[in-house]
Amino acid sequence: MELIDGNKIAADIVTELKAEVAQINGRKPCIALVRVGEDPASVSYVRKKEKTAAEIGVTSRIILPPVSISQAELCALLDALNADPTVDGILVQSPLPKHIDEVAIFRRVSPEKDVDGFNTLNLGKVAQEDETGFVACTPAGIMELLARSGVDLKGRHVVVVGRSLIVGKPVALLALQKKAGANGTVTICHSSTTNLPALTRQADVLIAAIGRPEFVTADMVKPGVVVIDVGINRVPDSSKKTGYRLTGDVHFPTVAPLASKITPVPGGVGPMTVAMLMKNTVKAFRLGQAR
Amino acid sequence: MELIDGNKIAADIVTELKAEVAQINGRKPCIALVRVGEDPASVSYVRKKEKTAAEIGVTSRIILPPVSISQAELCALLDALNADPTVDGILVQSPLPKHIDEVAIFRRVSPEKDVDGFNTLNLGKVAQEDETGFVACTPAGIMELLARSGVDLKGRHVVVVGRSLIVGKPVALLALQKKAGANGTVTICHSSTTNLPALTRQADVLIAAIGRPEFVTADMVKPGVVVIDVGINRVPDSSKKTGYRLTGDVHFPTVAPLASKITPVPGGVGPMTVAMLMKNTVKAFRLGQAR
Repeated sequence: MELIDGNKIAADIVTELKAEVAQINGRKPCIALVRVGEDPASVSYVRKKEKTAAEIGVTSRIILPPVSISQAELCALLDALNADPTVDGILVQSPLPKHIDEVAIFRRVSPEKDVDGFNTLNLGKVAQEDETGFVACTPAGIMELLARSGVDLKGRHVVVVGRSLIVGKPVALLALQKKAGANGTVTICHSSTTNLPALTRQADVLIAAIGRPEFVTADMVKPGVVVIDVGINRVPDSSKKTGYRLTGDVHFPTVAPLASKITPVPGGVGPMTVAMLMKNTVKAFRLGQAR
Repeated sequence: MELIDGNKIAADIVTELKAEVAQINGRKPCIALVRVGEDPASVSYVRKKEKTAAEIGVTSRIILPPVSISQAELCALLDALNADPTVDGILVQSPLPKHIDEVAIFRRVSPEKDVDGFNTLNLGKVAQEDETGFVACTPAGIMELLARSGVDLKGRHVVVVGRSLIVGKPVALLALQKKAGANGTVTICHSSTTNLPALTRQADVLIAAIGRPEFVTADMVKPGVVVIDVGINRVPDSSKKTGYRLTGDVHFPTVAPLASKITPVPGGVGPMTVAMLMKNTVKAFRLGQAR
């Protein structure tokens, strides 16, 4: 069994991006990080993004509207960033306060600056295999983990558990693409699936994005499977100072011995998302320069 | 075995739309049908659409630019139709002459008038389950055939053979949706799939959209399967006046006896596309009125 080391792969990508950005003369790529209010998790996520940007040489512009900002004011803020030629990518940190229509806000971000890949147009481009779009960071990170671990999906059966808009559906569309490394046969399972174990046991590559701790057990996989565990769940654990431990959607202790390759949680898919966000930002810069 | 009668179901939809349009006071829904040149198949398709529109009470505006029209002229024509408030839907008949960039032309049609459902934004809306979009006519027709034949996909295994942008991918996304009638577990197979029969034999519902005559044979299905045959292939047949016969992607004589329900070719999916085009046109009219 080989561990797919997300920290290592993400660090490699950061190193590559740093070298790429160093080659850019003049204005460097710039990401606007919009964080509304002081949600502690959001503070920590935005800080991590800012830190990684600095490491690569991507300029970050931190914008911290108060939690009381109105929908109209937030829209106006995004319109200004959309129009600003020195901003290449825009990230609006989720979750937003309850009085804000989050979907409407994500749609307000110009598709050309949508480095989070949540815009409808960018999702359509994933389906159309149009490389001018942006792929959401988690599914893009999964594909990168597979590619850099030497897993070619061609002709292999990829079983995705979970049909969410930010992971399950886009990763299924990516695995199905005609480009090198993809070309997988794809099955998408979800809460209405009957006899799930019979399907997951067919997987050459199993992508678990369910959001239920340790849901995938040893009896649900076949020996030699490649496992990508997208889940990050908090499970109460009195032996920890925090009172909880982090676990994936896969029961690691029993599944790992059967797998040929597997991502740990934490340290698998998680670290990839910030790296992919930066990759998208540099891409947005390049596309912007070419326009 | 029950035959799924596409002609009958399409006629039912036309009747329903006719009743709906009769209730509309004032301007009726209008579709612009753009046919470039005199390709015989295109002439026949556009005539069929015009005839069905007339039957329903949808106004059709037929626009017949010469085969020599330039890309810029065709774009200008579409811009004028996009801007015309008396035009609700726009259909550009495919194929276009070789000197025209077809993808660019389809993208030029405003998403709000894209009754063919080929626009990137509308494909993204299918993935997002956003009901304000337009679903391409063939996949929409397949879902309608299933619904009106009493086939609920919930918890059933839908196997789609073919990953095209106009059939395979959108129908997979539709079968996967959370709305009533959908909620299927979906597998998408294609030219890179290994051991295809082992997968198709698992199908409760098999959607064949391969484009190879009589490709699906009896050994590839399980008894009781519901079969939707999207293929329309011409096979040489000296006994026919035309010199060919039409056949689907399924070997009907041997598969039909095993199936619980099956679409014939012709007379299955084919007749549905024009009905769904009209349904989209009436929807575009309604959405336009509401804006």
